[in-house]
Amino acid sequence: MPELRHYTVIGAGALGGFYGCRLQRVGHRVSFLVRSDYIHVRQHGWRVDSKDGDFTLPTVDIYRTAEELPPADAVIIGLKTTENHQLPQLLRTSMKPDGVALVLQNGIGIEEKVAEIVGRDRVIGGCCFLCCNKIGPGHIHHLDYGTIGMGELTHDGKPAPISERLQSIANDFIRAGIHIELTDDLRLARWKKLVWNIPFNGLSVLLKAETNEIVGDPDLEQVVRNLMAEIVRAAAADGRTIDQAFVEQMIAYTKVMTPYRTSMRVDYDQGRPLEIEAIFHATLQIAESLGVDLPLVESLYRELAFIDRKMRG
Amino acid sequence: MPELRHYTVIGAGALGGFYGCRLQRVGHRVSFLVRSDYIHVRQHGWRVDSKDGDFTLPTVDIYRTAEELPPADAVIIGLKTTENHQLPQLLRTSMKPDGVALVLQNGIGIEEKVAEIVGRDRVIGGCCFLCCNKIGPGHIHHLDYGTIGMGELTHDGKPAPISERLQSIANDFIRAGIHIELTDDLRLARWKKLVWNIPFNGLSVLLKAETNEIVGDPDLEQVVRNLMAEIVRAAAADGRTIDQAFVEQMIAYTKVMTPYRTSMRVDYDQGRPLEIEAIFHATLQIAESLGVDLPLVESLYRELAFIDRKMRG
Repeated sequence: MPELRHYTVIGAGALGGFYGCRLQRVGHRVSFLVRSDYIHVRQHGWRVDSKDGDFTLPTVDIYRTAEELPPADAVIIGLKTTENHQLPQLLRTSMKPDGVALVLQNGIGIEEKVAEIVGRDRVIGGCCFLCCNKIGPGHIHHLDYGTIGMGELTHDGKPAPISERLQSIANDFIRAGIHIELTDDLRLARWKKLVWNIPFNGLSVLLKAETNEIVGDPDLEQVVRNLMAEIVRAAAADGRTIDQAFVEQMIAYTKVMTPYRTSMRVDYDQGRPLEIEAIFHATLQIAESLGVDLPLVESLYRELAFIDRKMRG
Repeated sequence: MPELRHYTVIGAGALGGFYGCRLQRVGHRVSFLVRSDYIHVRQHGWRVDSKDGDFTLPTVDIYRTAEELPPADAVIIGLKTTENHQLPQLLRTSMKPDGVALVLQNGIGIEEKVAEIVGRDRVIGGCCFLCCNKIGPGHIHHLDYGTIGMGELTHDGKPAPISERLQSIANDFIRAGIHIELTDDLRLARWKKLVWNIPFNGLSVLLKAETNEIVGDPDLEQVVRNLMAEIVRAAAADGRTIDQAFVEQMIAYTKVMTPYRTSMRVDYDQGRPLEIEAIFHATLQIAESLGVDLPLVESLYRELAFIDRKMRG
């Protein structure tokens, strides 16, 4: 049996922590770069309360600085995108020469920025549909879902067949009980994620509302649909077709989903910077470069930018 | 010297109270229909703190129900538009046979609804640019401005020369120290008021922000401009030209204005229903009837409708 892949998680918040713990639980060596919870996790390990079954990991391979990290086969980037200015320093020594970076962040255009640091042939992207919060030091609460839409950054940004490497990394996650949807078109997956992320992250902060309140209100459901229609239009200009059935599915899923504070809402409630650049501004910049006007997304972005600035004083 | 016109104020909140007090102060008989402050005002009269000079009116001709009101020459409608379902009952007995209704409410299309009650030749409309709050029972605080753009509802809704009656009523206000801008086109005045009211009332509630915060933020100034552009577009389809200089003037005025909680924000803070039907929904209905799409106004309306419903449980 070949040696299991060594993973490192950079940015071990709720999302990075959850996937890292699941990989360690099935036997992978997983190194965690942890900042705020370092002392707690070093002493007590991780605790994961999950709808798939609770578990603890008493012993954790944990580090406080990137310099101490042993080079890994795959580095999971679970940082908030608002911390991405740290990536050049964090990725420099944490990957083996043939290692890959697995970008599990929100937004669009992030893989391209990671590629500038580690090279374009070493980047995999994952869109996570995960309802997960950190509810205490080293304590993760997994409420629902967990699927990752995973694809490789190709050289020309166009769809390409699934590589052996991508399939092999996906298999690690599948063995860890994570549902993986492989895609030959990472860019399309990013656009699809934005169809959900832009309305629900945005409105949850703008209106201090939970996902079920948003889709449960006829006016807000229409606002969601109008925002989604703009994303679909921008994706189309980028050569990616998102059909109406996908839009309906996103709304239907959200209606039956456990009421949920979005990641941006959690950031807002905890006074952390909002991920508006990666999710909203990057979208608007791509749309602008394609000659597409997104007036509703732009308004929402500007309103959130005001909220973000005001919150941070 | 002819007898001075007898006014009645229906809805003696900050706005109705302020103008009524100014008219009484220069000698008019002014009857006030007062609900919540009735006992206080009956005992202590009105107190007006104004940037134009403070004054009190110890004796007030005050009524608790419309049935008791003596018929007046002119009835000032200062009610919140959310109470307009009461107008048929309130106006039935409060006007002399040749009396006029003076609609000082927010929104568009209100004069037409009052005309259905009292007849189309008995309605004057006024757009108030007034910064005024009620800060205690019978206690009005006038912070800034006070101008009324005043015009007559014409039979065909088209501009018409200023009538003697309109000029005469305007003169009453002018003698009371109120700046009046007479207009031969009430509809245009209503559109112009919406250019300010829609962005600033809407965003002040959506973002819990004061007017100076809104125009002081580069992102929100752009949101304001985009909303204003939609109103200008709808007005144009309605045959009314609003030039860019007016838009710039509204923004410049707001920048130098005393920081101000808009009337909708005050309503929100006090848990009162928001005037979204008269200000937003009526605008959207007119635009729709003219075949004009206002996506930003529509989103803001729907978001406010959610806030309004949530606030009222």
